[in-house]
Amino acid sequence: MKIRCEKESLLRGLQGVYRAVSTKNTIFALSGILLIAEEGVLTFKATDMEIAIEYREHDITIEEEGSIIVPARYILEIAKKLPSEEVTLFTEGYTVYIRYSGSEITINGLDQEEFPAFPQVNGDVAGRFDLEVFQKDIKEVSIASALDESRPAFTGVLFEIEGKNLRMVATDTHRLALKNTFWEPTGEKDTASVLIPAKILREISKLAAEDDETVEVVIGNHQVSFSVGNILFISRLIDGKFPNYHSVIPEESRFVASVEIDVRHFLATLDRASIMVKDQLRDRAGKARLILENETLAVHTQNVEVGKIHESIPVFQEGQDIEVVVNSRYMLDVLNVLEEETMVMKFTGPSTPMVMEGKDRKDYLYLTLPLKS
Amino acid sequence: MKIRCEKESLLRGLQGVYRAVSTKNTIFALSGILLIAEEGVLTFKATDMEIAIEYREHDITIEEEGSIIVPARYILEIAKKLPSEEVTLFTEGYTVYIRYSGSEITINGLDQEEFPAFPQVNGDVAGRFDLEVFQKDIKEVSIASALDESRPAFTGVLFEIEGKNLRMVATDTHRLALKNTFWEPTGEKDTASVLIPAKILREISKLAAEDDETVEVVIGNHQVSFSVGNILFISRLIDGKFPNYHSVIPEESRFVASVEIDVRHFLATLDRASIMVKDQLRDRAGKARLILENETLAVHTQNVEVGKIHESIPVFQEGQDIEVVVNSRYMLDVLNVLEEETMVMKFTGPSTPMVMEGKDRKDYLYLTLPLKS
Repeated sequence: MKIRCEKESLLRGLQGVYRAVSTKNTIFALSGILLIAEEGVLTFKATDMEIAIEYREHDITIEEEGSIIVPARYILEIAKKLPSEEVTLFTEGYTVYIRYSGSEITINGLDQEEFPAFPQVNGDVAGRFDLEVFQKDIKEVSIASALDESRPAFTGVLFEIEGKNLRMVATDTHRLALKNTFWEPTGEKDTASVLIPAKILREISKLAAEDDETVEVVIGNHQVSFSVGNILFISRLIDGKFPNYHSVIPEESRFVASVEIDVRHFLATLDRASIMVKDQLRDRAGKARLILENETLAVHTQNVEVGKIHESIPVFQEGQDIEVVVNSRYMLDVLNVLEEETMVMKFTGPSTPMVMEGKDRKDYLYLTLPLKS
Repeated sequence: MKIRCEKESLLRGLQGVYRAVSTKNTIFALSGILLIAEEGVLTFKATDMEIAIEYREHDITIEEEGSIIVPARYILEIAKKLPSEEVTLFTEGYTVYIRYSGSEITINGLDQEEFPAFPQVNGDVAGRFDLEVFQKDIKEVSIASALDESRPAFTGVLFEIEGKNLRMVATDTHRLALKNTFWEPTGEKDTASVLIPAKILREISKLAAEDDETVEVVIGNHQVSFSVGNILFISRLIDGKFPNYHSVIPEESRFVASVEIDVRHFLATLDRASIMVKDQLRDRAGKARLILENETLAVHTQNVEVGKIHESIPVFQEGQDIEVVVNSRYMLDVLNVLEEETMVMKFTGPSTPMVMEGKDRKDYLYLTLPLKS
């Protein structure tokens, strides 16, 4: 294998796949990146057996086709610090040489045969999103999924697909987010219900969206792939039962009070009030009291040792007065992702679910349960 | 006590003294900040018994003089998140009230009597620096001081004062930095030799220099104070014996070779080459081989498991060819602080001290000992 390319081409590829490199595993091949120079393209591959990423770089010159596994961390650090100029990378046996400005780096590589089988996703269900839409969907829904891996179903986002309608749902049992969105089906089958790790969806959301970029999704039996530009993500599906979320969502008739509230104002207030309570013992973390009365929402937090904060926000109120105790973390999460100026917050009672939505918007719903006061 | 001020005035004072707040100590008064409203000035004081900081804010309105200790971490976090407007802060007994836009924060304070005695520095030796000059001096010298507190003398910077001449020296026994600088004496006595913690000198270096700002220094028997603008730092002096550094600095006649080398180029090369060796066992950390031959300095690093890097830099050479093994960390430290384009590196032999200086500059010297190869 022998290639020539700008330092930036090498760096783009290495950075593109690096998040799939296993940092815990001591198996050399899993802490490595497979480089394949073939048919004018340099392909970078990495996998930690949970996810796999492939990146295809076209901006290179191949003088001799071939492939090699390189130690990921070292080659990435080196690539970052190379001078911004053309480098030559070639192999002799399993040794990799990188040459630039008369200097030379020698790295011990490994036969590509050692690289783990890279998953292939063949599925009947497939479709396409606009990347920016997809990123917004994921941002709004994935806040409700759990980080704790002990109950896998709660770490995923449910994709319920019927034709061009796609519903995403996530819950960690304390709160739930639901979004009705659209995609453009491109596969043979157009119904499915699968659970995708929120972690990988967040990774894809981090990719910078270029003009008109799309996400191509293929859903297999046990895996799902996302293809964006030069990059291909593959992840396992979560093999677990998602709870029946329909019963949790209150009927309209159950709401006894609702408010319209300025999102930025509520966010700033709750953020400040949370200072008092954020260092408490785990079960009390972020307990804030919300008191709705006379077109005013009062936010109250207290820390017996330190002191208390009391703030008031004018709101547009419908229905009765009400008082609930909430985990402020759960409220801040949704306030941080809502792009609307005004939020609608609806209450069913002091200890039954409350719902938050962007005003004049029916595609998204966030639900949480008040704490015991 | 009752004051009114912009949120920013409160925040400036709290942030100014916060670094002296004890984060480990559970004694309330040490994890607190003392506020004193008196004669039109709000004074903020904090101390962890190692250092003490005082900040004087004039941009406030005092309606009632008084003082109170407030819990530092909470009040700082709250002040950061207050809306940018005028706030009113007042006390009732030992309770502090902060009011803004109709909202109210209540914080449990403490009697100022509980605050530890704030050190006073009375000394005959005093003087003044231009802040920017002082910051450059400290940056260049403090890199050689030790972080490990087990041998206190090596964590300090020696100040040797004779009239307007001031020499700063630091060493961690592996390398030594020496700077001859000037100050403007303002005290009764004008000779002294004291050891000041490098940590506090670095803190002062972090202060942003405004136009023509100066640092006023007062040296007492056991303490030293630095006053910059509205802020006063007080630190203990280190009570330890600094090694006799004179014998370590080689006479000119001992140099067998010297090179002039481009600082940016050498820094980039050594930084890249260090990637190979920076994760090695502690005693081998950053071992780099420098080979001077035919107007070229070759830098070579090797990691048996991963590979090796070999780079060459053209240099202006005087004297013989030579080969030394260095700790690249010690070299990078000085390359990172030198502002000159060209550095002079002088060798006395493969296992005896080497010296680095900015070209055409005689006020600064950095010295390190090659490693055993």
